[in-house]
Amino acid sequence: MPIKDAAKFVAPFRVTSGKKFKLAEHATDSLGGHELTKEEGKLLLEEGKLRLAEMQERLYAADQWSVLIILQAMDAAGKDSTIEHVMSGVNPQGCQVHSFKAPSSEELDHDFLWRSAKNLPERGRIGIHNRSYYEEVLVVRVHPEFLKAQRLPLDGVGSTPGSDEFWDERLEAIADHERHLARAGTKVIKFFLHVSKEEQKQRQLERIDDPVKNWKFNARDVEERAFWDDYMAAYEQAIRNTAAPHAPWYVIPADRKWFMRLAVMNAIIAEMEELKLEYPQLSKEETKKLAAARKALLAS
Amino acid sequence: MPIKDAAKFVAPFRVTSGKKFKLAEHATDSLGGHELTKEEGKLLLEEGKLRLAEMQERLYAADQWSVLIILQAMDAAGKDSTIEHVMSGVNPQGCQVHSFKAPSSEELDHDFLWRSAKNLPERGRIGIHNRSYYEEVLVVRVHPEFLKAQRLPLDGVGSTPGSDEFWDERLEAIADHERHLARAGTKVIKFFLHVSKEEQKQRQLERIDDPVKNWKFNARDVEERAFWDDYMAAYEQAIRNTAAPHAPWYVIPADRKWFMRLAVMNAIIAEMEELKLEYPQLSKEETKKLAAARKALLAS
Repeated sequence: MPIKDAAKFVAPFRVTSGKKFKLAEHATDSLGGHELTKEEGKLLLEEGKLRLAEMQERLYAADQWSVLIILQAMDAAGKDSTIEHVMSGVNPQGCQVHSFKAPSSEELDHDFLWRSAKNLPERGRIGIHNRSYYEEVLVVRVHPEFLKAQRLPLDGVGSTPGSDEFWDERLEAIADHERHLARAGTKVIKFFLHVSKEEQKQRQLERIDDPVKNWKFNARDVEERAFWDDYMAAYEQAIRNTAAPHAPWYVIPADRKWFMRLAVMNAIIAEMEELKLEYPQLSKEETKKLAAARKALLAS
Repeated sequence: MPIKDAAKFVAPFRVTSGKKFKLAEHATDSLGGHELTKEEGKLLLEEGKLRLAEMQERLYAADQWSVLIILQAMDAAGKDSTIEHVMSGVNPQGCQVHSFKAPSSEELDHDFLWRSAKNLPERGRIGIHNRSYYEEVLVVRVHPEFLKAQRLPLDGVGSTPGSDEFWDERLEAIADHERHLARAGTKVIKFFLHVSKEEQKQRQLERIDDPVKNWKFNARDVEERAFWDDYMAAYEQAIRNTAAPHAPWYVIPADRKWFMRLAVMNAIIAEMEELKLEYPQLSKEETKKLAAARKALLAS
């Protein structure tokens, strides 16, 4: 029982208009109305991998579109393992992953879209951004003291750094940028892996206790829990202001990892299906040339 | 008799609102109402160089703004020599020049703003773009067959490549991008070096006849003269749609090279003066630290 209609499967999580979006209406433990067990989910994920690998090959051959996948989430929601489990079937030559950490001083010397723009996927390729310019309206919004390092002009063209208008301008810049990318042939797909505060706690505890996982533990991640509500408000604002049919957000329930991965997988498949990717058709002339080449090869 | 008010000097050439802009109203041989001889102009240019070098030092020290200078022109208008004569007094460590030629295949694999965005100046620096993303609404608009190499999706999010709406979308993307840069602390200054068709002819003839200059001659540049009116229409559209107080265009009369250089120089000075660049003031604490360091040094 493979998933026949990927778009339908992920429809409950897809947000293309922010106006009425409320994060509280999206449960972190939902299965989107699907009746599935974990075992079934894992089988479906394996099937999806084959499908995705084939679609990536077509993306590359068609050489018309690129795909930008943006992953955002609270700590321990499972961004890294999602990339591993969803994308591991894809030819790495057609897929580039960039993880954005705290900005370097060279990056802080440029506008906030710069480091992402530099690393956009080429035509025919999938680019995965593990965190992105959205951090600039999430962690930086929650901790506006980070703005200092950006040395923004206080009497400049933009609104006062840290003001509501300032964040609106940043969100406007992101929306403008994504519309430009979409028009240029980039499919922009954005994921918020939506985990509950309680589930995060369990996972962070596991990290502390498990000797295989405790290298991942960072005390700061626990401190950030104090700002949970601020983060949720910032995510809601970000999604409200940047959801669009050409750059949809997927708010993926992340309390069950197996379902989260399956949903992310199907969202990517659904969005890529929309591109109607086909292998290029040879013209009559090109077919003739191929036949001539075959003849020459055989005679050599 | 140095130029006291650079902004006033270049006011006749500054365009900050495109609505009523008509290129035909800008003469290519104007002196902007200034009574100046060539000799006086050359002296003023030398004075300006000192002033510009000092402003660049302050830009670097203040570490708050960057300056993006975009130069656009028809062939033989004098872009390269303007960079040489206007900027040669500036410390090259604080000034980066990028010349954009026909796009590489890697560049064609990205959206049209990408190659420029990669090369934006860092905070505290002047970036000069010798040609820019405006080529995408100038030469590509005049020769839409170049769009083929961009392999834009025909059934994508954007309007049909080559349609009027398509060019409007490109101009919108540029205007959005420049607003974003301005808000992030980049002073965007755009020049159209406006030469007459007749003056271009004289200069191209000179190139052919002068053994020192004829390496610069390219037969294609002469062929492009057939598209002169199309280029002028494309420039007018570009300026109409992207002139803004935070990203002004300067339409500089270019028939007299000495005046063109002086006007470009003063436009840059005027725009940088608006930034009110000051050397950073040390706090009391920092002054104390300096005094302690002096003491330690002397005792060593």
